Amino acid sequence: MTYSEESLKTLNKIYRLNLINSITGYKPANLIGTKSKNGVTNLAIFSSVIHLGSNPALIGIVTRPNTVPRHTYKNIIDTKYFTINHISKENIKKAHYTSAKFKDDESEFEKCSLEEMYIDNFYAPFVKESKVKIGLKLVEEITINSNNTILIVGRVTKIKTRNELIEEDGSLKFEELDTVCISGLDSYYSTKKIAKYPYAKRNELPKKW
Amino acid sequence: MTYSEESLKTLNKIYRLNLINSITGYKPANLIGTKSKNGVTNLAIFSSVIHLGSNPALIGIVTRPNTVPRHTYKNIIDTKYFTINHISKENIKKAHYTSAKFKDDESEFEKCSLEEMYIDNFYAPFVKESKVKIGLKLVEEITINSNNTILIVGRVTKIKTRNELIEEDGSLKFEELDTVCISGLDSYYSTKKIAKYPYAKRNELPKKW
Repeated sequence: MTYSEESLKTLNKIYRLNLINSITGYKPANLIGTKSKNGVTNLAIFSSVIHLGSNPALIGIVTRPNTVPRHTYKNIIDTKYFTINHISKENIKKAHYTSAKFKDDESEFEKCSLEEMYIDNFYAPFVKESKVKIGLKLVEEITINSNNTILIVGRVTKIKTRNELIEEDGSLKFEELDTVCISGLDSYYSTKKIAKYPYAKRNELPKKW
Repeated sequence: MTYSEESLKTLNKIYRLNLINSITGYKPANLIGTKSKNGVTNLAIFSSVIHLGSNPALIGIVTRPNTVPRHTYKNIIDTKYFTINHISKENIKKAHYTSAKFKDDESEFEKCSLEEMYIDNFYAPFVKESKVKIGLKLVEEITINSNNTILIVGRVTKIKTRNELIEEDGSLKFEELDTVCISGLDSYYSTKKIAKYPYAKRNELPKKW
């Protein structure tokens, strides 16, 4: 099957939504925690978290100001702080339902039975159940003009995880974390490590593929 | 373990690199195919592919002009076209080694034993072995000022996959694809579907979590 730009346009809307949301491959599964100026907490599932750099440690999330996670966007702009929290196997269902449209004064934490947690004086709430919690400060807001989505760039100012979940080289031990990933809009996956390769050097190419 | 912004700065460089590259969770595993103005093809593994929108279908990739995938960046800017190709289990090793630093006139396709494929008159090369191939036209180049990385935004103008790999609702059948995902800089994972939930509605919250 080959789709062209023209044939993509003629597809049924839901079909195209599912197709285009799945073609980039697996996506990370995270909950973004924020708190409004008035103190109402918010939690939203995001599959658009992206690593931007290690030094300084920068992470981006892509959002639309006018869709359901609008509270997330507004709270980040208003307060400058947000958290990223891994979703593990046992919390997929709760995390998924944070995408329902709740009332302005309702918190997804309470509605979806996840617990708020605060670390030091960090303004935004972390998810207690998450085995990896990241606190970020807003440093840049970038409009993607092609479709008016927004790339929010945050600098990592907090990381909380258990010591035993970090390898000697600094990597997280994903299989012990039980962190899941997403495809498309609604499918969740567990993973199994199948390969790890050294830093690739031209003069050390494998003799046999 | 809680890292603060200050303690992150004092970490060993490699340790921090591994930690920060792994904290966002799983990342998609794709090969970006390009061809220079002079006709030299290039192939580079990227874990920074991100869905930006479905209508129009827009996908972003994050890169640095001055690191190894610089050919990718230059070729996209010069020619306006690139491809995204899924990495499946059997091609992880070849895909990983595309990150070695090859000479300017060498193609990763040949060096890493992957086959170029052309579809219609699309300028950039696809990876024949990939079960999902996407062709994109550059529509926007955005500098992320916080660390001088670049978000390249492409509009999807081609999708090639087998009919049997698409569900009735338009989603890709990931388990049949054997597409893998990445954590950190060098670890590859196969996946297993564990849950799929309906579109979340406030008045249909599960009675029991």
